[in-house]
Amino acid sequence: MSTARTGDDRTRVVVLAHEKFPERAKTATGVLKYADYDVVAVLDRDNPGTSASDHRRDLPDVPVVASMDDAPEADALLIGISPIGGAFDETWRDDVRTAIEGGCDVIAGLHYFLTEDEEFAELADEHGVELNDVRKPHDDLTVAEGRSADVDADVVLTVGTDCSVGKMTVSLELVEAARERGIDAGFIPTGQTGIMIAGWGNPIDRVVSDFTAGAVEEMILEVGDDYDVLFVEGQGSITHPAYSAVTCGILHGAMADAMVLCHVDGREAIHGYEEFEIPPVSEYVDLYENLAAPVHEGSVVAGALNTSRVEGDDAAREAVESYSESLGAPATDPVRFDADEILDAVLEET
Amino acid sequence: MSTARTGDDRTRVVVLAHEKFPERAKTATGVLKYADYDVVAVLDRDNPGTSASDHRRDLPDVPVVASMDDAPEADALLIGISPIGGAFDETWRDDVRTAIEGGCDVIAGLHYFLTEDEEFAELADEHGVELNDVRKPHDDLTVAEGRSADVDADVVLTVGTDCSVGKMTVSLELVEAARERGIDAGFIPTGQTGIMIAGWGNPIDRVVSDFTAGAVEEMILEVGDDYDVLFVEGQGSITHPAYSAVTCGILHGAMADAMVLCHVDGREAIHGYEEFEIPPVSEYVDLYENLAAPVHEGSVVAGALNTSRVEGDDAAREAVESYSESLGAPATDPVRFDADEILDAVLEET
Repeated sequence: MSTARTGDDRTRVVVLAHEKFPERAKTATGVLKYADYDVVAVLDRDNPGTSASDHRRDLPDVPVVASMDDAPEADALLIGISPIGGAFDETWRDDVRTAIEGGCDVIAGLHYFLTEDEEFAELADEHGVELNDVRKPHDDLTVAEGRSADVDADVVLTVGTDCSVGKMTVSLELVEAARERGIDAGFIPTGQTGIMIAGWGNPIDRVVSDFTAGAVEEMILEVGDDYDVLFVEGQGSITHPAYSAVTCGILHGAMADAMVLCHVDGREAIHGYEEFEIPPVSEYVDLYENLAAPVHEGSVVAGALNTSRVEGDDAAREAVESYSESLGAPATDPVRFDADEILDAVLEET
Repeated sequence: MSTARTGDDRTRVVVLAHEKFPERAKTATGVLKYADYDVVAVLDRDNPGTSASDHRRDLPDVPVVASMDDAPEADALLIGISPIGGAFDETWRDDVRTAIEGGCDVIAGLHYFLTEDEEFAELADEHGVELNDVRKPHDDLTVAEGRSADVDADVVLTVGTDCSVGKMTVSLELVEAARERGIDAGFIPTGQTGIMIAGWGNPIDRVVSDFTAGAVEEMILEVGDDYDVLFVEGQGSITHPAYSAVTCGILHGAMADAMVLCHVDGREAIHGYEEFEIPPVSEYVDLYENLAAPVHEGSVVAGALNTSRVEGDDAAREAVESYSESLGAPATDPVRFDADEILDAVLEET
């Protein structure tokens, strides 16, 4: 784990997004929207001289420059795009070299590990900077000790009815909403994009299966005393034919005090596993709570419904209302509307 | 995966257990008791000229010899002991070399990988034999597809209230008991010792967490059409603070038709995690069945109680009776008594 988190001296980051910014640069835009970093520039050789906010209204006013040579002083370069297959694009080599020579750490989520690139490894060594391949689990991971509940922060976990229902986004929206209320909220990333956004974290789906809970616990113990509330990014679903192991390990490793159940409106079967029906949401509440209880009692206190496919806010509100009733708890779509109702429910419980 | 399973031409195996046979050679004795192999000799330089059955009544009459030079012809050498830390003991080198030169595969469950030993790798290549490091997950593992229920065999999974409650032993006793009744029963190993005994299998606790269910499914698809019943070795417990991810992945990957709940009489807290109580056994039945159901319906049809710490058979029968009542299903201690009651319940369900 590396690089800094929120504070008075936030890490200054340059985000590389050549030729794909913003629509094909999800990590870059995620970092701009949600990360703790002070993003000082976006690298896009197609759009020098513009601002990120020119390209999308919800992005901050950050200068877009053509190369690392034109970027302001920074602490780290973050690779904010990923070609199919996670390869390293050789047209980025000059920027990475310039960054390292200028004393920048480099953060990447590629399958191609920068630490195994001979030139970068030697150069990083020479300049005393860190190459952080976030997809590579570190070597000291081990089994959980069951100690996550000992930290000062309350722990909130996003859980889901399926994969790709918005658990990371909901977690990040809750962090933002809590911070807006002056609450010292932290984010525990568990997947590649979450880790890129946070700038640290363990890629839970890539660790040795015996260490699944332990890799979550390690993160919570590391920062849990520094925050009032931690929002842990969930993965998969406890009913998923392939990924439930990761979900279960996060559930028990996080020892969450409260859970937020995420769902996509209208989804009736597991994505990509269409013969597996998604059970009623009330069943998920029982499954998550009953499975959590022997390790740590935690309740599903609210729901987050992804209504991105619902046309019109009125219909979306109806969908949310119906979801809330099935769940027996407050619910909303925190992206379409805001996260207040979920946050209220979370704060009441914790 | 490699080497053969039961059949008319069983793999002839020499088991290495120098200086530790039988009491400190659990893998060797497990292989002698349960494996599908035709064990043709045990290597123990301390006891040449004896028989395994001289040392322990429950072991078969297999000659003990001093070295590979004295062993009868075989297809494989299996390392049946493991020093602390899983290192390779250099006093074994001559035996391994002789085995390879004689055309034997070598099966080992050490942390030290024989495939990474330069001499052995070259020698194995030269002689066309396989070095099988069972602790090393193979490279082609991937995510589950949810297809384990498609095989011809019924699938029975041992589940537990904790680690080290006897899931492997119960599975193997059930395989034996079923075979004695003429049922074509197979064993799906999931841990190191089970794999050593079976001579093939994926070490589920060492695979990438995303592939936990997939690594179980791969084994079931590979052999599931060759048997009437498959007994899958469970791992950990669904309430374990550290290992539940592995348990959950096996549960969903196996898609079991029936489960056998294993417990140690008198154990009240998770072993090594004493602040975590073991919930009532009826709660385990609900947890396992409810968690299994969205992927594949399966019932806990019987219980296996480890009464090794109970003095006297009468007291053990009382303990079993009480366990059966709590469980609401037949139960016994298949090691102390026999596996018939469990097998009857399993066969009735599947």
